[in-house]
Formats: sequence, structure tokens, C-alpha cells
Amino acid sequence: MNNSHEQWIHQVVELASANVREGRGGPFGALVVKDGEVIGTGVNLVTASHDPTAHAEINAIRAACQRLQSFDLSGCDLYTSCEPCPMCLGAIYWARPRAYYFACTRDSAAEAGFDDTFIYDELHLKPSERTIPGHCVTALGGDAPFIEWAQTVQKIRY
Amino acid sequence: MNNSHEQWIHQVVELASANVREGRGGPFGALVVKDGEVIGTGVNLVTASHDPTAHAEINAIRAACQRLQSFDLSGCDLYTSCEPCPMCLGAIYWARPRAYYFACTRDSAAEAGFDDTFIYDELHLKPSERTIPGHCVTALGGDAPFIEWAQTVQKIRY
Repeated sequence: MNNSHEQWIHQVVELASANVREGRGGPFGALVVKDGEVIGTGVNLVTASHDPTAHAEINAIRAACQRLQSFDLSGCDLYTSCEPCPMCLGAIYWARPRAYYFACTRDSAAEAGFDDTFIYDELHLKPSERTIPGHCVTALGGDAPFIEWAQTVQKIRY
Repeated sequence: MNNSHEQWIHQVVELASANVREGRGGPFGALVVKDGEVIGTGVNLVTASHDPTAHAEINAIRAACQRLQSFDLSGCDLYTSCEPCPMCLGAIYWARPRAYYFACTRDSAAEAGFDDTFIYDELHLKPSERTIPGHCVTALGGDAPFIEWAQTVQKIRY
């Protein structure tokens, strides 16, 4: 198990380095392992694909879910070259792998110019006080979709 | 401006309700507006597309970015039927719209069975103490991708 563990970390760091060398995007890679097998990999493709959500972890999760044809990665482990940003951490919670492992921390990312810590700090503020402010516009029937959801018999929970 | 503002909120709530009525997925919708025009919409397609990242906001951001062929939504506003979860809030920070507006809060989402608050609470914990634990595996050259990135002359920052 330890050998495999180090193998995946090594592989994910190499994925990240290759992504830089090959000029595809940022220095990040990720992979999802199930039962000792890689079932999805991802690298950062934000600039190449004009997609700010195309982080390595998001791409690896999406690839693994397509492979399994499931939105649920229970029993899987996620390996990533760097501690996940809040977006990717949120994605991890929705995908529900067993655990995740990273090869360096967000401090290293910040030193390299990727300031995820800024976003982590913003999460602690009230929406209206954030650098990108969020405003709740109430009294316009905003709960209506939830009422419809509650009344729907046939639905797939997630 | 106020009229448009209410119009977008109305439209995004209707997107969310229609998604439930048409059996596609969860009760969430989002849209991105630039210069008074909708440039991308999204609904929750987690179950339909086997993709735990396919939240309404993520899908709307991705659609708008494809339309603009840019990973940057500066100058845009994002409207969403419900306060964003941490994943979608992270995506908002990476896409950098001017602001976002939501029709109901995460408390309403929690009452409807979508417990984003749980994820927000988890973010405050150390990675190793979270329900889905994160472990840093150091001393394995984890910084190597960042070193390669720093040494790369031709790169697109994001």
C-alpha cells in the first residue's frame, strides 16, 4: 500500500510538471484511484480551454465520474500535486472520495503566484463584504424551485 | 437597471424551476450577464451528466467563457437561484465577475436537503481533521512543477 501511495504521488507530480513542459497550462495535476487502478486523470487547462473551472482536480473528478458513469466517487482516493483550492475542495465534497493526498501545500502555491489563500480568506467574510460581492435578492419567490423539488416524487438525490 | 436586475433574478428562478419540472436535475439555475445581455446559462445537471461538478453556476460560467473564448468574466454579473456552494464560490473567484446575485440563501438550500453549510463548516478545519481528510505527502519533490513554472518564459498567467 505504501509503495502504491508514493507511486501515485510521484505520478501526479509528473503530470503537473509535464503540463508545464508541454505548454498546456498551469503546474497542476490530479488523479483518482479506485481499487489500485487510476480511473481518471486531470491537468490544469484553464487557459487552453478558456475555462476557469478546468483545474486539475475538477478535470480528474469529471474524468473518473465519466468512467464510472456515476457522480459518486465513494471508495476512491484523489491524488493532487497541490493542496486543493476552495473550488476543488468543494468538488471533492460533492464527489465524496474516501480521502485526498497532496504533494505540496497552498503556501507553495501562493509563492508560485497562485493565491488560493486569498479565496479561503474571502470565504470567512459575509457575501456582501467580499471583494467580489454577493447580494441576496429576496422576496421574489426565490424558494419556488425548492418547493417544486419537495413536491416531486421521482427525483434522484445527490 | 433595476428592471433588468429583477428580470434576471426572475429568469434564473424560472430556469431552476423548469429544471425540476423537466426532470433534468436539482432545483438550481444560473446565468451570466454582460452589457445587458445573457451570455451563458446553466442548470444543475449532476445526476443527468454523472458529473458532481455540474452545478448551475459552474455550467453558466463555463458557457459564458466559451461564448467569450476567455477564462475571465470581468465586467460580467452572475445571477443564481441560490447562494453558491463553496465549489461555485471558488469558481466565481477564478472567473472574476463583477458581482453575483442570488434569489435565496444557503439556509433555504439546507432546508431543501442541500447542505452546503456542512461544506462551509468543513473548510474551517485543518485538512487532516475533515470528514473527507486531506493529507500532505511532502519530501517527494512536490514543488518541482512550480519550479518548472517559474523557469518557463512563455506562459499565460490566469
